[in-house]
Amino acid sequence: MRVPDLTSDLSNKYVIGVDYGTLSGRALLVRVSDGAEIATAVYEYPHAVIEEKLPTSGAKLPPDWALQVPSDYVDVLKVTVPAVLKESGIDPKSVIGITTDFTACTVLPVKSDGTPLCELPEFSKNPHAFVKLWKHHSAQPHADRINELAHARKEPWISRYGGKISSEWEFAKALQVLEEAPEIYQAMDKWVEAADWIIWQLCGKYVRNICTAGYKGIYQDGKYPTKEYLAALNPKFENFIAEKLEHELGALGAWAGTLTAEASKWTGLPEGIAVAVGNVDAHVTSAAANAVNPGQMVAIMGTSTCHVMVSEKFAEVPGMCGVVDGGIIDGALGYEAGQSGVGDIFGWFANNYAPAEYTAAAAAKGVDIHTYLSQLASAQPVGAHGLVALDWQSGNRSTLVDHQLSGLIMGLTLSTKPEEIYRAIVESTAYGARKIVQTFNESGVPVKEFIAAGGLIKNSFVMQIYADVLNMPITIIKSAQGPALGSAIHAAVAAGAYKDVQTAAAAMGGVADERYQPNPANAKVYNDLYKHYNDLYESFGHNGAMHSLRAIRDRALTSTEGK
Amino acid sequence: MRVPDLTSDLSNKYVIGVDYGTLSGRALLVRVSDGAEIATAVYEYPHAVIEEKLPTSGAKLPPDWALQVPSDYVDVLKVTVPAVLKESGIDPKSVIGITTDFTACTVLPVKSDGTPLCELPEFSKNPHAFVKLWKHHSAQPHADRINELAHARKEPWISRYGGKISSEWEFAKALQVLEEAPEIYQAMDKWVEAADWIIWQLCGKYVRNICTAGYKGIYQDGKYPTKEYLAALNPKFENFIAEKLEHELGALGAWAGTLTAEASKWTGLPEGIAVAVGNVDAHVTSAAANAVNPGQMVAIMGTSTCHVMVSEKFAEVPGMCGVVDGGIIDGALGYEAGQSGVGDIFGWFANNYAPAEYTAAAAAKGVDIHTYLSQLASAQPVGAHGLVALDWQSGNRSTLVDHQLSGLIMGLTLSTKPEEIYRAIVESTAYGARKIVQTFNESGVPVKEFIAAGGLIKNSFVMQIYADVLNMPITIIKSAQGPALGSAIHAAVAAGAYKDVQTAAAAMGGVADERYQPNPANAKVYNDLYKHYNDLYESFGHNGAMHSLRAIRDRALTSTEGK
Repeated sequence: MRVPDLTSDLSNKYVIGVDYGTLSGRALLVRVSDGAEIATAVYEYPHAVIEEKLPTSGAKLPPDWALQVPSDYVDVLKVTVPAVLKESGIDPKSVIGITTDFTACTVLPVKSDGTPLCELPEFSKNPHAFVKLWKHHSAQPHADRINELAHARKEPWISRYGGKISSEWEFAKALQVLEEAPEIYQAMDKWVEAADWIIWQLCGKYVRNICTAGYKGIYQDGKYPTKEYLAALNPKFENFIAEKLEHELGALGAWAGTLTAEASKWTGLPEGIAVAVGNVDAHVTSAAANAVNPGQMVAIMGTSTCHVMVSEKFAEVPGMCGVVDGGIIDGALGYEAGQSGVGDIFGWFANNYAPAEYTAAAAAKGVDIHTYLSQLASAQPVGAHGLVALDWQSGNRSTLVDHQLSGLIMGLTLSTKPEEIYRAIVESTAYGARKIVQTFNESGVPVKEFIAAGGLIKNSFVMQIYADVLNMPITIIKSAQGPALGSAIHAAVAAGAYKDVQTAAAAMGGVADERYQPNPANAKVYNDLYKHYNDLYESFGHNGAMHSLRAIRDRALTSTEGK
Repeated sequence: MRVPDLTSDLSNKYVIGVDYGTLSGRALLVRVSDGAEIATAVYEYPHAVIEEKLPTSGAKLPPDWALQVPSDYVDVLKVTVPAVLKESGIDPKSVIGITTDFTACTVLPVKSDGTPLCELPEFSKNPHAFVKLWKHHSAQPHADRINELAHARKEPWISRYGGKISSEWEFAKALQVLEEAPEIYQAMDKWVEAADWIIWQLCGKYVRNICTAGYKGIYQDGKYPTKEYLAALNPKFENFIAEKLEHELGALGAWAGTLTAEASKWTGLPEGIAVAVGNVDAHVTSAAANAVNPGQMVAIMGTSTCHVMVSEKFAEVPGMCGVVDGGIIDGALGYEAGQSGVGDIFGWFANNYAPAEYTAAAAAKGVDIHTYLSQLASAQPVGAHGLVALDWQSGNRSTLVDHQLSGLIMGLTLSTKPEEIYRAIVESTAYGARKIVQTFNESGVPVKEFIAAGGLIKNSFVMQIYADVLNMPITIIKSAQGPALGSAIHAAVAAGAYKDVQTAAAAMGGVADERYQPNPANAKVYNDLYKHYNDLYESFGHNGAMHSLRAIRDRALTSTEGK
């Protein structure tokens, strides 16, 4: 292990954070002394998200599947790290650490040496051998059983997850593998988070980070669910933890190992520099925003939104994704909540439902279709579209934890225009955020500050709607690369440059000076509209109609009876 | 009065029917002996439907207004009748009668000589001086009061209208004029249906047709609502009937008068030929389909759908538009129900929400966007889109009689495509039709046959969905110009060529040989989907949510508070 000379000037030392998103990976080269962002590079995954056909076999995937290819992740390292070194012109020897953050729960089956099963010839055409991306939602029936049994047996851990384990997480996805592809389940030695798998590739060692172990792997108070519970789910699942899941844990910001010779070749970084424990894109962003105090809710708003908040107090928040000791920073409780669809709902509408005249007008103005729709929509007074929508096109994470829910729009008339639906959809996600904030407030862990991060912070139309709907100022993270900066901060801590993540965050992270302030008149109208949202939320969140409609859909898609 | 020589061959005699639709008027020249359609011509109203700005003043109209300009109707006569005479090449002297049918309730304020108030200089900039088109929906608060008071006073006539008087009809619209523009109310000598006003222009005489008097004017069992009832609505409304509404009535198919010299000049038809009593586009279509027997429901499917059915039996059908003695044919009870939005909902979606690539692909295939969307949508099994919608973008006529309701779509996901929403919207109108048929069946006047007429019969995609959703064969009217043919049939009766409408309909009307048969597998899936529609229908039809959402919209549009 190379030990950096920390008596020297930190302004000559650098760290690299690599952020693995849904469609691409980004490296960021950061100065250790002040977090200055020196260079960045992005690489789009060649296989992107596999939702329709498996590329190796051409086989059609069932609805609600979402896979990825692990070699895409390694390619990110090979492309982006050399690129930032080159762009910055710094001496690679001045880089003292690297770490990564990942989407979660994104999980894959591997052999004991870390080889993904999908890279073995015998499993290359088996969809269950691939990475299951966070938004792979077809394990909902498995999640339903997990939850039903946990409540029936009064398992103590279920309350730590708002009463529901998500179909996105490690257990539901593993149970799906066991029951739909027992050959894959049997062949895998480890069921590993991609967040940890990529660190394994960097340092040659598997360390399971405490964040995903807690939030996605039901690790609470030093233990996992019992063998008895697992056996009751499925007798063949009894030894899942001992055989496939359990592993050495690592705290956030801790040292996982040192860069291997092979990873040094991929990246051009010196062999032996510090590699920190893996992390999750949302959670690591708190450090980048220097928002690691109780009551500071950081919302990472992009394709989906993840809400993270540190607290010293334990509370059971209905529908939260989880509360994990050390889940955001070591030594404090970390709360997580989320909205499974946000920016991707805006994209779905803008890309599929903007008519030709709008696309042409946007092109003529030299703006993208989102900007064009936003400009039209902002000309209207709040509420003038007469619409309210449910933001469940991708299901609901918090507070209902139900991925079989679906989107709804109400109030349509023959004069409803595309920009009005677009605005109603943006608003629906803001109502979803308000529902989460309100639930935390009512559960005894109040949200005192709302800090936005993620790709949507560039969109002032969206940000102002959030300020008005939440009736709270919205603070904006300073960095445009929050997760990558957060990873770099963790790398600096692992390399010994700072004593802990809080200290490093104060030096390297922060928020912008300008905030979005709520407009009181708009906030008043949104109060009325939110009541409608809340009524729809409570009604369709519990009445089973969307489940039954989805069951009709699934029967139609899997049979030819209706053809 | 010119008396045709009916001993001569009817195959050398002709009649003209003129159908006044929402956007245009159409003349049809028809052979009396067999209904052969010799020539047709269309003229689009220069002012179309006035919904945003009054053309004379540029003043912005409030939401839910829909006006027309009466001179457009006269222009139809001047253009289309000479055109069909010219196209056919027949001797104008062989035309023995003419009549018209109209949208309803489309109503205007006139002086005692028939001059529309909007043609007087002093009222030309007053929106209340114009024709209120059927889909002028802003008199809903007035309709609400009419209904509330009728139920409170147990007025006997209210049950003849499914328990609700529509905001579209004569009383609600007149009360709106009284209360919003008393100067117009005071200046008008007659509040006259456009259906009768145009006949007045043709024959110089005002005859009030029994059909609109019954369905739209609350004329039941030989009388109108009492003065006491009207005074309780508004003291100044007490003498509405005696002063503005009441007038000589004419039975359907009866002779209203003879063509005036002026109308002869407009049209090129001989002065003095028979002009039949005015009629309504939907009701007159029954004759064109030769569907004037009990249990034959004729659905005139276009912009909106109107359902008419003759019966010998009286029943109270919840939410029907009305039951009127002689309302479809003289001597039988006529039932009417309706859907206020059908084809216009398809148009709203296709014209506003089809993306550029779809528009381009449709153009490349040489088909219109409806055909393109239908082709994509029909490739899917029934139910595979996972969607269900409420067809209330233009409110709900039957069975809820509530124009403040609005459209809703449920089941949206990030993979929902435009053709899927398009299909769901078509299906939603079919569910609306099923709700109406079911309500008649449950009320003791069962629907034995479903005969489709109107512009949508050309669309086999729509027709098959209706057959599958209703789980009934759909019979199709033979004529592509049902209302105009129906008017021509009435003109033939008025001219003395047939003894009554039934006899004339049997000779001149009819249906096509081919029917749309329901597909049993599709019908089964639609049964399940219809349950969802019905749940949404019962819930949102009564829970007030859409009313409250619309009130928020209206406040936003009329104030700057939310800006």
